[in-house]
Amino acid sequence: MTMQDTIQETPQTATWIWYPGDFEIRLHEKMSVKRRTRGVPYPAYWRLDRHYSNVKFRYVYDLPREEQVAIKAEGAFSLYLDGKDNDRTDEPVIMLPAGKHEISVSVFNDVEMPALYIEGPNIRTDASWEATSYQNDWVPAGMWTFDSPSAPPSAFRLAVEPQEPASAEEVQGHPLLDFGRETFGYLRFHNLQGTGKVRIYYGESRAEALSTAECYSVDRFDAGEAARLAEDGVYTLGDAKAFRYAWIHADAGVSWDRVSMLYEYVPVTYRSAFACSDPKLNEIYEMSLYTLHLNAREFFLDGIKRDRWVWSGDAYQAFLMNYYSFFDLNVTRRTLIALRGKDPLVMHFNTILDYSLYWFVSLSDYYLYTGDIAFIRQYYDRAVSLMDFCLAQRNEEGLVEGRQQDWVFVDWADLDNSGAVSTIQILLARGLEAMSAFAAELGDAAASKTYLSLADDLKAKTLCLFWDEERGGLLHHRVDGATQPMLTKHANMFAMTFGYLSPAQQERVIQSVMLNPDVPRIRTPYMRFHEMAALCESRQHDYVLQEVRAYWGGMIELGATTFWEEYDPSLADDAHYGMYGVTFGKSLCHAWGAGPIYLFGKYFLGVKPLSAGYETFVVEPQLGGLAWMKGTVPNSAGEVEVDMDASRIRVRATHGHGVLRFTRDGETVEVPIPADGSWLEASLL
Amino acid sequence: MTMQDTIQETPQTATWIWYPGDFEIRLHEKMSVKRRTRGVPYPAYWRLDRHYSNVKFRYVYDLPREEQVAIKAEGAFSLYLDGKDNDRTDEPVIMLPAGKHEISVSVFNDVEMPALYIEGPNIRTDASWEATSYQNDWVPAGMWTFDSPSAPPSAFRLAVEPQEPASAEEVQGHPLLDFGRETFGYLRFHNLQGTGKVRIYYGESRAEALSTAECYSVDRFDAGEAARLAEDGVYTLGDAKAFRYAWIHADAGVSWDRVSMLYEYVPVTYRSAFACSDPKLNEIYEMSLYTLHLNAREFFLDGIKRDRWVWSGDAYQAFLMNYYSFFDLNVTRRTLIALRGKDPLVMHFNTILDYSLYWFVSLSDYYLYTGDIAFIRQYYDRAVSLMDFCLAQRNEEGLVEGRQQDWVFVDWADLDNSGAVSTIQILLARGLEAMSAFAAELGDAAASKTYLSLADDLKAKTLCLFWDEERGGLLHHRVDGATQPMLTKHANMFAMTFGYLSPAQQERVIQSVMLNPDVPRIRTPYMRFHEMAALCESRQHDYVLQEVRAYWGGMIELGATTFWEEYDPSLADDAHYGMYGVTFGKSLCHAWGAGPIYLFGKYFLGVKPLSAGYETFVVEPQLGGLAWMKGTVPNSAGEVEVDMDASRIRVRATHGHGVLRFTRDGETVEVPIPADGSWLEASLL
Repeated sequence: MTMQDTIQETPQTATWIWYPGDFEIRLHEKMSVKRRTRGVPYPAYWRLDRHYSNVKFRYVYDLPREEQVAIKAEGAFSLYLDGKDNDRTDEPVIMLPAGKHEISVSVFNDVEMPALYIEGPNIRTDASWEATSYQNDWVPAGMWTFDSPSAPPSAFRLAVEPQEPASAEEVQGHPLLDFGRETFGYLRFHNLQGTGKVRIYYGESRAEALSTAECYSVDRFDAGEAARLAEDGVYTLGDAKAFRYAWIHADAGVSWDRVSMLYEYVPVTYRSAFACSDPKLNEIYEMSLYTLHLNAREFFLDGIKRDRWVWSGDAYQAFLMNYYSFFDLNVTRRTLIALRGKDPLVMHFNTILDYSLYWFVSLSDYYLYTGDIAFIRQYYDRAVSLMDFCLAQRNEEGLVEGRQQDWVFVDWADLDNSGAVSTIQILLARGLEAMSAFAAELGDAAASKTYLSLADDLKAKTLCLFWDEERGGLLHHRVDGATQPMLTKHANMFAMTFGYLSPAQQERVIQSVMLNPDVPRIRTPYMRFHEMAALCESRQHDYVLQEVRAYWGGMIELGATTFWEEYDPSLADDAHYGMYGVTFGKSLCHAWGAGPIYLFGKYFLGVKPLSAGYETFVVEPQLGGLAWMKGTVPNSAGEVEVDMDASRIRVRATHGHGVLRFTRDGETVEVPIPADGSWLEASLL
Repeated sequence: MTMQDTIQETPQTATWIWYPGDFEIRLHEKMSVKRRTRGVPYPAYWRLDRHYSNVKFRYVYDLPREEQVAIKAEGAFSLYLDGKDNDRTDEPVIMLPAGKHEISVSVFNDVEMPALYIEGPNIRTDASWEATSYQNDWVPAGMWTFDSPSAPPSAFRLAVEPQEPASAEEVQGHPLLDFGRETFGYLRFHNLQGTGKVRIYYGESRAEALSTAECYSVDRFDAGEAARLAEDGVYTLGDAKAFRYAWIHADAGVSWDRVSMLYEYVPVTYRSAFACSDPKLNEIYEMSLYTLHLNAREFFLDGIKRDRWVWSGDAYQAFLMNYYSFFDLNVTRRTLIALRGKDPLVMHFNTILDYSLYWFVSLSDYYLYTGDIAFIRQYYDRAVSLMDFCLAQRNEEGLVEGRQQDWVFVDWADLDNSGAVSTIQILLARGLEAMSAFAAELGDAAASKTYLSLADDLKAKTLCLFWDEERGGLLHHRVDGATQPMLTKHANMFAMTFGYLSPAQQERVIQSVMLNPDVPRIRTPYMRFHEMAALCESRQHDYVLQEVRAYWGGMIELGATTFWEEYDPSLADDAHYGMYGVTFGKSLCHAWGAGPIYLFGKYFLGVKPLSAGYETFVVEPQLGGLAWMKGTVPNSAGEVEVDMDASRIRVRATHGHGVLRFTRDGETVEVPIPADGSWLEASLL
């Protein structure tokens, strides 16, 4: 490389750099302990990984003349040149000598993540610098959008925006504020006066806020102290909460002008759209978007009131919804990195065997929807070691079983998950296929072949050992070498979605399992997400729309403003709000409740990438009985628009090689979508 | 267990508890970044492990009546009973219900180590509580001597004591203080007045302090600011330093009454003694004790000026010296735990292959000298995984080689350590023997047998592949299946000390290797420690005393007040102070310089444990040409005293089954040492 090259390649601005992954891991550590149950901390019950406190950065430059640079670090730093580690400086401004030199900077920080920012005319920290955790691991430094020396990574906060209550009333002499719909943020008291205690009872429902003894979230502060902490006459509470209602009890003598809130959120763009001839479905779609948005935060959370943790199985679904709505890859990447954490792998993600396996599928989806091979490359080693960890759990038959310390989850249902569970084998096979694809993309043909062969063996074995020809489906589990008679939908759904069944098997599964009332019903929105997707894969669109209207529409009937963790139409009144034996234990804003985003975008508008980053894709719209629908699905480079009624389909794409596929006169028709962004119109008549 | 049992077993005081090992690991993280080179941070260049930020404690009690307890935590805690994790409290005082219940307490702390202190009439935190890092690992909680709720683990500090300079003079108009001998601590300015800068140049030698441009340690502060920080008129500097001299340069207008220092140290007891007919040796012994004491701090450091890091090979020697002097097991245990750190093992201890192996030998010595099987039990799993890590590095011949990223050290010498180095195999064999012994003690006979068989194989293979019958010693290394002709003392010394050679081989090694001037001389006190020990093992006591007088006596001649990192009598004047290409780079107070403590105690007084905790021991005194000597060697239960001249030996022991062994008329005589603490006297005539 010539000197000229170096200077040309230098980017325009410096940026904060760190050991890759540590920003996300540190943020995850902080967020995993934010949960409060009635004001009391309820930390996540798994190992929380930590940033490396001791790291070093390096960079080789070649400068025609000496240059002055300014150095900022989060932590104690020292800089030296050309390996002369006895001759260090920690001056904030230094002169770098001309010529070719290697800069080394050690940074130590045992509170926040060590980070470095160096800025000069030509020498500036960016991803072309390398970092080490002193483990024989010089890797490209981590970075994001922290481009200002005064806004270091540790200062990262979500955006905030003032919101006012929609209405207020007095209940038993205390003000009850209603913010109109579910929200998340910090209550604010304007012009707080007097002395005494203030107690706040939050509710996702009105009933919850009015239950001072059982509402999930509470706050309590001293008015005098709070007034002293006020800025510009406004006291903002320290902890953000999920709520729609807040019931405020204050001691006599405490007063304020008004109470508002500071809404806290990730400023995503609502890039998707869906509208159709059924207004109820449109309402469900919009509410799903809002539900997902509230849960798309530092990471994709399960729910914003509870648990406020990062669960891999929940995130897997949120990722998919995100590709059909905001296409915000920052939240996705942060979540993928935080879930993987650090070595050693001792327990599975969130203690759940299936949740480790979902991570591979999530990573595979990430690559399919974004084409971001750089991210895959950066975290490939962590994927390899996770796969090694999972494969080490195979029994003598080569099937993965839960260890004594593992939670084999599958679903919130009364399932016997002992032995080797068929769903687990199918998730592992899909993970092995993903690893094979990554290895191939990264040029390791041998590893790719090994992973593929493991995947093929496992698929074949699973079909052989679990398929019940008589009952037309995959049985649930196998204990001590004997497949048990229990039949559930779960493995069948995944096998269908992943394309592991023959057309004949798929047809049998639909009729004998998925639509068979004798097979136990799926009750959680979590698994209904996969169930609805599997039914769509089998063209049961009319049935799926009926289910969506009943299930999601049912929540709206009950006053939902975001979708819930669980919904059982048979319950009465406030019984809907209970879960886990806790009166208001149910989360009323749960990411997995937003599944219609994915269903409508992928299976009704029918937009599906076929290769990484939408380089090729197909659009297979299905009205599912609707008179018309139209909508937009975003991707990295632009979006795909679909507009359909019973007589014609119109499609437009900004990027990639797309094909419109539809049925006319009982025959499948495929038409290329123009690459110039113009509309394609196809008649269905 | 009955209720009565529970209550009886409750100790008298509560104590702070934590996840075992995390106190030492957190302290090590902090201490590893204390090094400063001319005021600039110089952190350790290996991964610094970190405490778990998220831990949980549990305890099952059975109480006849309810009981009020007070709870303190370092970190955010929440407590719940009987697994009801939705019903938590973080109140500082609670009432525990009567009956049998399980207490769970989660504690999160991402700055200092999570720790818990609960105190009630019967329920109190102690080592009978268990802790988990949420990795399927309920283990007995860690604890030490933090018995007061107001003195939590994070407040741990060494002891301090004021010291005055021995003398002062003006040099070039600036005061040069001389504290009389090497010391460590914080300078203090009494009644500081005026404004301006104060600069301090520290020196372990006078020449270093007077070299403002090149002295290793410096301080600089603003007098006005310092005066504001003063307590009771005394400003104490923030960073402790190693020095004998301090040269103080102040701007005009800055004044003070006097400068003293706050000596910082571990309050050990000097439990050993040695005196003999040669006053020079007595001086060497006392100076060795002081040298070791200065380096026995939070951990055993290599040197107090530089590096102030915990090096496993250095610590191995300090442990042995400590058994013959202070017998302070706290520093030893802290050091052993800090060195092992956490998983995953990626690099070797201090990046050095041999340093991982020394840890097993150190742990083995710890058990031999103390009999503390509880400590071995607590850290056995970490020993097993370290051994797995080391064994994974064996080549096709079954010999351990350094990986590309490993430093194979052996000694500070110009050695070619490529391929399989014989010293490494011998250290590994000794480690495997130690693991076999631990496994046996802990009741795992199968593991014990496996380790022993691995050790025996490796010893046999090493003797077979490296022994050169013609040259009478073990050759240095083997590359690509071919043993190379290089002959060094190192492997031969260790093989002799560990008893791996036949008597005939041992005799040949002494003459053909150890006393052969054609074999490269050992120049570092580090390896001279082992060389002298090996020579003593072969009864070369007269020769060893000559060497001690010349080598350690030589440093005293040059004005040493503590022993150095290295000593080369051929150097002139201030050239003694340089090392690593740095003018004052040499450490003049280095733990490995204190070797005579070990030599005199083990090989002259001749006190050696034969089984764990001095349950059996032998005393084999050797005058080595001295007219008389007497001394004391401590152990866990008391001490052994020896008093010998040419005509008789007197021995007294407070504990254990000891045997006095000596030679009379060319025959070996063994006499049991009385168990009642009375003196045994044996005539040598």
